[in-house]
Amino acid sequence: MKIGVLGTGIVGRTLGSRLAALGNEVTMGSRTADNEAAAEWARTAGASAGHGTFADAAAFGQVLINCTSGMVSLTALRAAGADNLRGKLLIDVSNPLDFSRGMPPTLGVSNTDSVGEQIQRAFPEARVVKTLNTINCEVMIAPGSVPALHNLFLSGNDAGAKDETRRLLQSLGWPPASIVDLGDIGTARGPEMYLPLWLRLRMALGTGHINVAVMVGE
Amino acid sequence: MKIGVLGTGIVGRTLGSRLAALGNEVTMGSRTADNEAAAEWARTAGASAGHGTFADAAAFGQVLINCTSGMVSLTALRAAGADNLRGKLLIDVSNPLDFSRGMPPTLGVSNTDSVGEQIQRAFPEARVVKTLNTINCEVMIAPGSVPALHNLFLSGNDAGAKDETRRLLQSLGWPPASIVDLGDIGTARGPEMYLPLWLRLRMALGTGHINVAVMVGE
Repeated sequence: MKIGVLGTGIVGRTLGSRLAALGNEVTMGSRTADNEAAAEWARTAGASAGHGTFADAAAFGQVLINCTSGMVSLTALRAAGADNLRGKLLIDVSNPLDFSRGMPPTLGVSNTDSVGEQIQRAFPEARVVKTLNTINCEVMIAPGSVPALHNLFLSGNDAGAKDETRRLLQSLGWPPASIVDLGDIGTARGPEMYLPLWLRLRMALGTGHINVAVMVGE
Repeated sequence: MKIGVLGTGIVGRTLGSRLAALGNEVTMGSRTADNEAAAEWARTAGASAGHGTFADAAAFGQVLINCTSGMVSLTALRAAGADNLRGKLLIDVSNPLDFSRGMPPTLGVSNTDSVGEQIQRAFPEARVVKTLNTINCEVMIAPGSVPALHNLFLSGNDAGAKDETRRLLQSLGWPPASIVDLGDIGTARGPEMYLPLWLRLRMALGTGHINVAVMVGE
């Protein structure tokens, strides 16, 4: 599959490398065509890995993954171009972490809106699915690094897009039973507002290899 | 133990009844001394149950439990009176659910503040511990209604107050290993901002008998 990864941070590089290793063709996009992090990533991620601008990556991918910070995702996606997003599955992995108030960060978007909703509103012809934002990138590509069955969440308006997302998650090692469909893109507020708890669990437990398992009674 | 329960809603009534059944003396407080819900609760909760104003309940309790809505908790606690809170463990179970924007509710306090922090700031001589707000009241008093080990969170500035809270939680059936100390009262933002995810899990899964288990890798 041709995948466009938007963003050159640790999330984009880690997801991109794993998806390339799984046999996908991956192009990483950034603000400029000569981004050094993207070029270095492409050199090490194998023959099927390339890099370019956000627009290059978005035009290349049949599936797009937004790995930019949620604080700048709309800017990055505008640079990618609505024409390059139209009709495509756009997996939004971002969190709008705002470090300007100190540590731990607050959220730059929350409560009455979410980045997932902002993206879907700005690009109504993209098929946005929010997922993977509730774990760090090491766990994203190695769910077995956390014990037992633990959960991911899906938020999106398009059932077919969610099915495609499920298949991509399964290729990363996430069993079908681990994936909880929360509903439409409006439900992205839940997983995005979970981040402040995740941040404090990471601080209290001293590791980022954490995730929640949703336990359900009768 | 003498416990003051502030609030006459389903959370206060359920927690109060269970704590009375466990042998505690419980007084339920509300805005007015003749609150019908509190009077009815006291009639059915046994000889050790009483009711009165917020100030009556706060003066009575060695331990206080804030079961009012987080939207009105500061008002209720001001009515209870700083003198009646001084030096006492004040367990804050509240969530600031704002139903004015429709369902599911948003939070009336979030991101850059929390109700737990507001209460501690307003009553610096109370020993505030935030806990139990991440589950519904049926699970609060019957952790076994959800399978396996699942977690509660503690946020508070006073180590002794957290120890007292742990003992009270254990009396309700929560094993020590289920209780995660997140840190100071500032960490209450995490569990409070988790509520939007809880609300959407409840809608998606069709039951309120849910809780999260924190899974930790190496």
